Amino acid sequence: MTDHPTTPSAPSERSRVRRAPHKARYDRETIHAILDAQPLAHLGVVLHDGSPLVIPTLQWREGDHVYIHGSAASRALKAALARPACLTVSLLDGWKLARSAFHHAANYRSVVIHGRMEKVAEEEKRQKLDNMINAYFPGRSAILRPMKDKELKATLVLRMALDEAAAKVDDLPVGDDEEDLNLPIWAGIVPLSTVPGEPRPDAHLPPGVPMPEHVVPAYLRTNRRENNDDVSLREE
Amino acid sequence: MTDHPTTPSAPSERSRVRRAPHKARYDRETIHAILDAQPLAHLGVVLHDGSPLVIPTLQWREGDHVYIHGSAASRALKAALARPACLTVSLLDGWKLARSAFHHAANYRSVVIHGRMEKVAEEEKRQKLDNMINAYFPGRSAILRPMKDKELKATLVLRMALDEAAAKVDDLPVGDDEEDLNLPIWAGIVPLSTVPGEPRPDAHLPPGVPMPEHVVPAYLRTNRRENNDDVSLREE
Repeated sequence: MTDHPTTPSAPSERSRVRRAPHKARYDRETIHAILDAQPLAHLGVVLHDGSPLVIPTLQWREGDHVYIHGSAASRALKAALARPACLTVSLLDGWKLARSAFHHAANYRSVVIHGRMEKVAEEEKRQKLDNMINAYFPGRSAILRPMKDKELKATLVLRMALDEAAAKVDDLPVGDDEEDLNLPIWAGIVPLSTVPGEPRPDAHLPPGVPMPEHVVPAYLRTNRRENNDDVSLREE
Repeated sequence: MTDHPTTPSAPSERSRVRRAPHKARYDRETIHAILDAQPLAHLGVVLHDGSPLVIPTLQWREGDHVYIHGSAASRALKAALARPACLTVSLLDGWKLARSAFHHAANYRSVVIHGRMEKVAEEEKRQKLDNMINAYFPGRSAILRPMKDKELKATLVLRMALDEAAAKVDDLPVGDDEEDLNLPIWAGIVPLSTVPGEPRPDAHLPPGVPMPEHVVPAYLRTNRRENNDDVSLREE
């Protein structure tokens, strides 16, 4: 829990956090940290018929841009290039169990980015896709079979500036009403975290190929350190 | 890995899975199971200026409807009632590390639901909100301080039918090219799972209030059983 006594200002009207504005964070440090902690993103676009489409996709960050990739034939990526897009990244960090149903809530971190996606140029795609691999598995791109031209051609890489990014963070304790605090009802926080399991070597792997250290994703190594005191239920 | 030799048919054109259609699932059993395994949803709506907005929210399922709730003043919920909406629920189940960058991929489960949200009637809200609490923490609603009328008034409950729901599941092994299989590059799957940490009792809890068993969320108890052989890295 951190004190944020002043209300920060949003980069644009559509980016302004309306609900619970005390949970809003517009500083780049917070936004970067959330993006770096969660590769799973949800891309929102508007289809030709005017209805919204939300698809899960993977994101990585370079400086003040967020990147996604996909098939050159993807309907969602085409829509994201043609019209305004929204990319949202969320982590459910825990459950707040309160004395009242009303004050039950989640601890979470999220970033909502509004803007236009732009296509990364052909000659930059190879480097960007290497960067994606290395963002999750540091150093891995160097040991892989080189990318083929037809693979690059089949792949779109898009990026969006963080100009209209807004984060929302709830790391507060349970927020029950004062008069309920003495009720004999258990209240507290149940933290959640994502953990990697035992890697499963591919069935076709030739004998003697060592497993590199990088197979445990970089973003989870950090999480595991931070949440070290939260793991004691895992083995039950 | 399951064989799905026939291509199933989508409930509507906008719901049809375009990319990797062999991963599409349109049966209710699969859709229900994914929704029941992940309360975190991403709601997509179209704002007045025509741009999409994606916000994280919590969902629960009752029969063939998915439910969300929020503040009666929420911009996103108002937009979701006024125009078509899209609700997407995703689980990142693991990383596929391949011999080539191109065949790196995620193991995942997702459900995308298109449709119109409808408002749950005033007289049904109390029961629905109890159902939400009990969906995550079975039996908890019965021990809570009763809901107040003003709390109910401040809360909207919306629901959407699963008529236009489509799931996509990738639980396949690494899909490298045949000619790359003998390369001396480690390939395999790194499973991921969400685990609850040690519950943290609220600072204001009176002494002697026991912690109920239900504080470990129901949807994670199941996950933990299923992934029991994936947890051995957790204590490293």
